[in-house]
Amino acid sequence: MLNFASDNVAGCCPEVAQALLEASTGTTPSYGNDEWTRTTEAELRELFEKPDLVAFPVLTGTAANCLALATLCPPWGTILCHADSHVNSDEATAPGLLTGGAKLVPLTGADAKLTVESVREAAATAGSRGVHRAPAKALTLTQATELGTLYHPEEIEDLCSAAREHGMAVHMDGARFANAVMALGVSPADMTWRLGVDALSFGATKNGAWAAEAVIFFNPDHAEAFQYHRKRAGHLLSKSRFLGIQLSAYLQDGVWLRNAAHANAMAAMLSDGLTEVPGVELLLPTEINEVFVRLPDTVRAALIAAGVIVAPWPDLGPGAVRMVTAFDTRAEDVATVIATAATA
Amino acid sequence: MLNFASDNVAGCCPEVAQALLEASTGTTPSYGNDEWTRTTEAELRELFEKPDLVAFPVLTGTAANCLALATLCPPWGTILCHADSHVNSDEATAPGLLTGGAKLVPLTGADAKLTVESVREAAATAGSRGVHRAPAKALTLTQATELGTLYHPEEIEDLCSAAREHGMAVHMDGARFANAVMALGVSPADMTWRLGVDALSFGATKNGAWAAEAVIFFNPDHAEAFQYHRKRAGHLLSKSRFLGIQLSAYLQDGVWLRNAAHANAMAAMLSDGLTEVPGVELLLPTEINEVFVRLPDTVRAALIAAGVIVAPWPDLGPGAVRMVTAFDTRAEDVATVIATAATA
Amino acid sequence: MLNFASDNVAGCCPEVAQALLEASTGTTPSYGNDEWTRTTEAELRELFEKPDLVAFPVLTGTAANCLALATLCPPWGTILCHADSHVNSDEATAPGLLTGGAKLVPLTGADAKLTVESVREAAATAGSRGVHRAPAKALTLTQATELGTLYHPEEIEDLCSAAREHGMAVHMDGARFANAVMALGVSPADMTWRLGVDALSFGATKNGAWAAEAVIFFNPDHAEAFQYHRKRAGHLLSKSRFLGIQLSAYLQDGVWLRNAAHANAMAAMLSDGLTEVPGVELLLPTEINEVFVRLPDTVRAALIAAGVIVAPWPDLGPGAVRMVTAFDTRAEDVATVIATAATA
Amino acid sequence: MLNFASDNVAGCCPEVAQALLEASTGTTPSYGNDEWTRTTEAELRELFEKPDLVAFPVLTGTAANCLALATLCPPWGTILCHADSHVNSDEATAPGLLTGGAKLVPLTGADAKLTVESVREAAATAGSRGVHRAPAKALTLTQATELGTLYHPEEIEDLCSAAREHGMAVHMDGARFANAVMALGVSPADMTWRLGVDALSFGATKNGAWAAEAVIFFNPDHAEAFQYHRKRAGHLLSKSRFLGIQLSAYLQDGVWLRNAAHANAMAAMLSDGLTEVPGVELLLPTEINEVFVRLPDTVRAALIAAGVIVAPWPDLGPGAVRMVTAFDTRAEDVATVIATAATA
Repeated sequence: MLNFASDNVAGCCPEVAQALLEASTGTTPSYGNDEWTRTTEAELRELFEKPDLVAFPVLTGTAANCLALATLCPPWGTILCHADSHVNSDEATAPGLLTGGAKLVPLTGADAKLTVESVREAAATAGSRGVHRAPAKALTLTQATELGTLYHPEEIEDLCSAAREHGMAVHMDGARFANAVMALGVSPADMTWRLGVDALSFGATKNGAWAAEAVIFFNPDHAEAFQYHRKRAGHLLSKSRFLGIQLSAYLQDGVWLRNAAHANAMAAMLSDGLTEVPGVELLLPTEINEVFVRLPDTVRAALIAAGVIVAPWPDLGPGAVRMVTAFDTRAEDVATVIATAATA
Repeated sequence: MLNFASDNVAGCCPEVAQALLEASTGTTPSYGNDEWTRTTEAELRELFEKPDLVAFPVLTGTAANCLALATLCPPWGTILCHADSHVNSDEATAPGLLTGGAKLVPLTGADAKLTVESVREAAATAGSRGVHRAPAKALTLTQATELGTLYHPEEIEDLCSAAREHGMAVHMDGARFANAVMALGVSPADMTWRLGVDALSFGATKNGAWAAEAVIFFNPDHAEAFQYHRKRAGHLLSKSRFLGIQLSAYLQDGVWLRNAAHANAMAAMLSDGLTEVPGVELLLPTEINEVFVRLPDTVRAALIAAGVIVAPWPDLGPGAVRMVTAFDTRAEDVATVIATAATA
Repeated sequence: MLNFASDNVAGCCPEVAQALLEASTGTTPSYGNDEWTRTTEAELRELFEKPDLVAFPVLTGTAANCLALATLCPPWGTILCHADSHVNSDEATAPGLLTGGAKLVPLTGADAKLTVESVREAAATAGSRGVHRAPAKALTLTQATELGTLYHPEEIEDLCSAAREHGMAVHMDGARFANAVMALGVSPADMTWRLGVDALSFGATKNGAWAAEAVIFFNPDHAEAFQYHRKRAGHLLSKSRFLGIQLSAYLQDGVWLRNAAHANAMAAMLSDGLTEVPGVELLLPTEINEVFVRLPDTVRAALIAAGVIVAPWPDLGPGAVRMVTAFDTRAEDVATVIATAATA
Repeated sequence: MLNFASDNVAGCCPEVAQALLEASTGTTPSYGNDEWTRTTEAELRELFEKPDLVAFPVLTGTAANCLALATLCPPWGTILCHADSHVNSDEATAPGLLTGGAKLVPLTGADAKLTVESVREAAATAGSRGVHRAPAKALTLTQATELGTLYHPEEIEDLCSAAREHGMAVHMDGARFANAVMALGVSPADMTWRLGVDALSFGATKNGAWAAEAVIFFNPDHAEAFQYHRKRAGHLLSKSRFLGIQLSAYLQDGVWLRNAAHANAMAAMLSDGLTEVPGVELLLPTEINEVFVRLPDTVRAALIAAGVIVAPWPDLGPGAVRMVTAFDTRAEDVATVIATAATA
């Protein structure tokens, strides 16, 4: 089986897996008081050039996003997001539950990207009837987006400015943050707080960890509320070292960037190869580790016959599929896929 | 450091750690569709002699307990629990959040154990004023209890009968279920569904896993609601194999029972040794892997000086402490503690 | 001041006001056990030709809608509604709070009316990713709509059929139900349960009461859950006779229909008169007691100068306003408005 | 029937009933922008000698209490209350729902009164385990209490001081505030904010209105959050004049105090008369408009035969009943009750 359905079909990268094994013995304080969790926060402070940021590990992206939003938005507020965002499309009713009932308002925009215009308009609408509406209090954007596209830093800055003007805090869903950093060649700081981002879901799961995300607040005042939100959602781990080890190994010696660079390179190879196959249509630019293509029926049948798994993506029309690469995708497997498609 | 503060200061037992390493490569379907998650359910069905049970892995005990209760109790119901129970004392406002606002009513009872009388009385009170009160819809009991004591099967049966008469479903918090099974020598089935238990938080974290509990429903009708509750709380793992591997390794070849047997034996040794030290008072019978003692100041000082960490337990009075053993507690360390105390 | 901003700027119709005065003395059981509340339910059963319906008075439309939806939809479900519906546009975060976090998905459609196509598509989308999405469990439609338009019975039937096929219950927001009944000349039964509607917010406030709506379930099985939902939202009135009196006086001798007939007639007169004024544009057909027009600046200025209050309605474009008539709108005041506009 | 079961079996006092009738015609802005609502706030500012207080009418006591608490306490906090308090005993799961899941911790204390000791102890317990517990953030006390007893001002002051020291805000449930003011002869200011009370549920329903309570915050900073909480619970009335009229008529010319004085006097007469009847035992001092007595079976039978309705109060033991007087209780009816009892 060559499974390209998602980057979450992969396991755990060797550096993280090995670190977990090595640190599995001995005792250490629990509930976030272990040394690895502290190390992780210290490393993130350095990485983001922000000595007062606070970082809290959680286990899933849904928890990271929704608990961050619960911290930034009162339960009577509106959260603006893209209609295609994970928080709107794939987190079921988690936003409603974990924020205490805040209103998620999905906006449209090409390539899964929010536009300043739609944000301004939605904020004005949300704020136009006093208590009869839920005022816009938070904006969430995904970098890289769920369609594998990227916001350029100036776009993020413009969205943050618009958010600020309308009284919104800004959250960034960085489930594929590493892939975005590598693709844009921009420092973590220059893609987040320097542009006005207040909180980041710093994803590690899709890029080599088992189950680890860090919620980062660039203003430490958010720490207290977040910690209570995390606890009451059942996301404070007793053996917190398990999270700390994953994240510290992930950050050490550039593992996280190497993993992302590899995944991005594999996607580029896949994208380049497939688009040369007659009848294959590239539906979106391949900017990170995701390839969205329309496949002719013959190609699709050939891939299935060869045991290649892709994800149907009906939102992009009939025949559209998503293929995702990961830290462990092998070049020879990509070559096999291309060859299979080319000879279909 | 000899850390006896809790069984969550331990890491991960070698069988689980090794299994995680070995299964860290290759691709597999995500979100619960991996083979290890399926294997785990199959193993639990056999272990509990109940071919139609459903089992769902989650990452923390708080999640296991509160999501199970959310499934058993409507948001307008009352949940009866012991005042000393984890769900009442250590899960903050998680029960309120995850059940949608159900009312947790704590009851008293010696040794952290519920009595049939207090359950009947509380159920009658809860049900006595129509919609002005929240009718009792669920009962949760902890086996073994938070004070390291055990319900005998007939006590559980009586509580389940009382619950049933008053229209309550029964949940068992089994954070230390393995220790209870070993201590009582009773089969899993004979301690749960055969007595009337509807749902069990089957804990693995404290007994050798990193972060893994299985929520078991003995009636498969609860599956649908639980799966939505789990997802909306952010507890559905993408790389679900991480949970499946832990649990399948934990269940294989009796690892879970060996771990518990060892922890229980270490606690017995510790308890026996300490109670022979003049001035040390055993506050509760040592039935599983927890020892509750009152230490004279001199003994306490000597332990601190020797780097022994214990947990102050003020609920049991001044000088009271809890000491917990785990799968990896070493007999020589227990001997050191006893010797240190004896010569204080 | 001639206030046409809404039908809630009116007071209370004389029949209701007088009944309240007369029944203000003496004692009666509280919390819904008074005779007027029982009478109201009996009258509604007769009126709707449904002897087993259950009816519960509440005080506001927001409570009626959201508590009905909380009863019909699990907290993990999706509720489909029109983007212009009151529940989406004017009830802030009440749906999220009172349903326990269900997801409100707004649909578009001309004249504030849902279409079968958009309902089917949204239901398919909501149901397309298992637990990662919130399955569509309820549909809410407003009759008459927030833009003063009407669903014809066959349209309601088609929507109910589509809802049923996709596993949704159907709620009707009848804040202006009386106006719709009078406008269409259709019996209450033929506009609701005979077409497949499960629950109705039967509004009285806008049509002559002070603060009274009845939530009607055509299937009595919904009674238990609703009563708990109502209580926990603080909407169970102690002196429930206050609600019962309003509703029984409202229903007696056709008061509710006379009030609606009058309001509708006044709106028709206003609409006819205004559309003859050069430059005034009728934006929607005037089917009930609401008139949506675009006013030239001169006309608008003249109305303001004459003390006529209208509600700006920017959703319909620049210059758009809403004018609403009520049970107590006077024909001479309508004539004054028309004359003022005509001579502007 | 002579119904002494509660003060909510009464109707509406003539001043309020008449004012409602008179103000039922004409148009006025809705949603709190009517003149009566403004007048009410102005009157309360004068009455409480606090020009910057903010006051918001709601319809029920449950709404008043729970929405006030939602404003004072974060969803992850603990609210301390008396076990016999209305919020704990008679508001079902409303506190959990409307606060977003805060934890209600009931305390014991004679005569339904909190003690400083139990408050301090509970606050310490709640705050003793970091995020694993819910820190005490609000204290609610009822004046007069649910057992008809009174806190003396110095007791309130002590409770407020203890609350402040532990980081709690203080809410007073004043469902029978008027009765307390008359009984103690203390000014409203001297019973609330001058002692440290932050928010008051100022009840009018039990003392002569149909359905009207004012939630008063002595610090206007609470206004914004409360208004959103009120709206999202469905408690913002469209025809808000209905609430404003009730409250302004209630406050005008001392109606509220006269009503309470009368009810208190009738209870004193009833209490004095009954306690002279052989075998009747007064269970609590009669301080306001509630009488708690144990009745011999013969007396009880005689009262039932005479059509006198009382409320069984099993919490005070077998044979215990509550009898409540109201603004409209007639002295001759009280005399009848006493005579009936005396000749039993």
